[in-house]
Amino acid sequence: MTRPRPLVPRGDPADTVKVVGEFGVIGRVLAQAGTARAAQVGPGDDAAVLWTSDGRVVATTDVLVEGRHFRRDWSSAEDIGRKAAAANLADVAAMGGVTTALLVGLACPPDTQTSWLEGLAAGLAEECAPLGAAVVGGDLVAAAADSASVVLSVTALGDLGGRTAVLRSGARPGDVVALAGRLGWSACGLAVLRRGFSSPVAVVSAHRRPTPPYAAGPGAADAGATAMCDVSDGLLADLGHIAADSRVVIDLDRAALVRACLEPAGPLQQVGSALGVDPLSWVLTGGEDHALVATFPPRTALPVGWVPIGEVRKGGRTPGVSVNGEPAGDVVAAVGAEGAGHVHFG
Amino acid sequence: MTRPRPLVPRGDPADTVKVVGEFGVIGRVLAQAGTARAAQVGPGDDAAVLWTSDGRVVATTDVLVEGRHFRRDWSSAEDIGRKAAAANLADVAAMGGVTTALLVGLACPPDTQTSWLEGLAAGLAEECAPLGAAVVGGDLVAAAADSASVVLSVTALGDLGGRTAVLRSGARPGDVVALAGRLGWSACGLAVLRRGFSSPVAVVSAHRRPTPPYAAGPGAADAGATAMCDVSDGLLADLGHIAADSRVVIDLDRAALVRACLEPAGPLQQVGSALGVDPLSWVLTGGEDHALVATFPPRTALPVGWVPIGEVRKGGRTPGVSVNGEPAGDVVAAVGAEGAGHVHFG
Repeated sequence: MTRPRPLVPRGDPADTVKVVGEFGVIGRVLAQAGTARAAQVGPGDDAAVLWTSDGRVVATTDVLVEGRHFRRDWSSAEDIGRKAAAANLADVAAMGGVTTALLVGLACPPDTQTSWLEGLAAGLAEECAPLGAAVVGGDLVAAAADSASVVLSVTALGDLGGRTAVLRSGARPGDVVALAGRLGWSACGLAVLRRGFSSPVAVVSAHRRPTPPYAAGPGAADAGATAMCDVSDGLLADLGHIAADSRVVIDLDRAALVRACLEPAGPLQQVGSALGVDPLSWVLTGGEDHALVATFPPRTALPVGWVPIGEVRKGGRTPGVSVNGEPAGDVVAAVGAEGAGHVHFG
Repeated sequence: MTRPRPLVPRGDPADTVKVVGEFGVIGRVLAQAGTARAAQVGPGDDAAVLWTSDGRVVATTDVLVEGRHFRRDWSSAEDIGRKAAAANLADVAAMGGVTTALLVGLACPPDTQTSWLEGLAAGLAEECAPLGAAVVGGDLVAAAADSASVVLSVTALGDLGGRTAVLRSGARPGDVVALAGRLGWSACGLAVLRRGFSSPVAVVSAHRRPTPPYAAGPGAADAGATAMCDVSDGLLADLGHIAADSRVVIDLDRAALVRACLEPAGPLQQVGSALGVDPLSWVLTGGEDHALVATFPPRTALPVGWVPIGEVRKGGRTPGVSVNGEPAGDVVAAVGAEGAGHVHFG
């Protein structure tokens, strides 16, 4: 694709999608895209073509809506690109795979600044680059006439490298429940932003740019994980999917969870004290850090980055999640649900 | 995924996404989804896993915005599902591939009828089923608070079955330009709908449910096509991409094009007479029928479904498209650009 000559200087208020036009914007955005190692055919044709190492491809998609999943006044374009990529890369990791490519659909108001879109593309590229992945295709359209909001859809493709895909349905009684990555930081950062503050920086950054433990996913698959998912809606909610699909009870060990997520004391306690919030509520119900949770057969030597936080018990007629034997709902009622920020259809 | 018990009767005005909830809707929508032959892991986990026959996967994505790409008062939910799938299946076919799976992202207002989403899913499934494909993943979120419009993003994955991917950049001087499928019908149908009519049914149906010649794509690849794309924005516009990427001139034979697209006389002439529109303008500039255009080496026996409509010439310094040697722009000025309905950023 030829690089278009911008008609207006970059950063000029008139440098919008409407003025530069679809193909001009795509050219400038693609300049940010980087190269996917697995691409036989990259962006610019009817479709991309990706190599798969073992005759299979992992595929997942997420939609992010301005005002519901991100705010342009709270996050930079780069932040939003990184976060949108991270959510999908974590889904692929939670199967035991490594992301090879993204496809990105974007509906944006015609007056969207071209530089904002370049920032978004840069953020997507930065998050993908360490894995050798990049954006290989996309579609850019005008938002609905009644909307000034950006809608972003990201599809990630990934490679299992011969590993068995780790599903949500494989947890068995006696398995160890383990965690990789952090919990509650994004929710704590959101709580701070919602109250009009922008520090502590550590949690606000965690909300803007989550850092999922991508390598822990394939690592868990290699170690024989029986079930796995990423924590996008909150630990209790996402473990609830594993419990339901595996027909088991997942019992968390409160002390182990506190050790893993709240020791040594740090910004979660600091913000919790300031706001009168039990930081354990962020750990239990906060999503968007995209930690990974998995179950492993008993006596498995947990791979690097994983710590035990509970165990799997027989589900009987009531699969679900508990903390030290107490039903998750009662625990949330006691500590609060500060993390449960994202109501899907409010 | 367990089938939820609806709290309100199906079809009841209160049977909306907001009332039934995200997971309830997903359960009902998945019941429409069918099964992808290539799926090792289908919907319901963090990601799907698809088999690829030759170690490669084709991938493409499209975003459709209500009011810009479809109208709920002009098209049923099934129509919109079929059309959204068709646009992507045609992109995969234009590489020489066959679609194996779709991923679907949907942002919709909370008061969207659940039955509308079931219809959309049924339409997607119907369009995919003859190829053995199905929806294997997706994401359902609430539309932006400022919008009552649906935004739909569809990603198609496909299999090349060992074929060489046919790009836009391979056309060579002397090649034959050929067409598979029809042109101008969708644009003619749109012209009818815009004027408040709903017949002739043939063109209105063509607008609502395009019928791209999917098998012609792999057929062309097998026959040695040097370049190919689908006609989504109009014949002249899309051949312009092949001309630019291949650095050639594509010269269409007006008589051959008329023979291929306007003989024997049918609804395009009928509507053209009634509206005072030259039907050739729909053929040259109308998109969304998703015909395929390709170039073949000279003396190639064209595969089934393909008819010659022009030839490739040296591009020199000015690659582009012409009709009987006359620049495309002059031809459009003479016949009108009735088909060019979709302005990307108006």
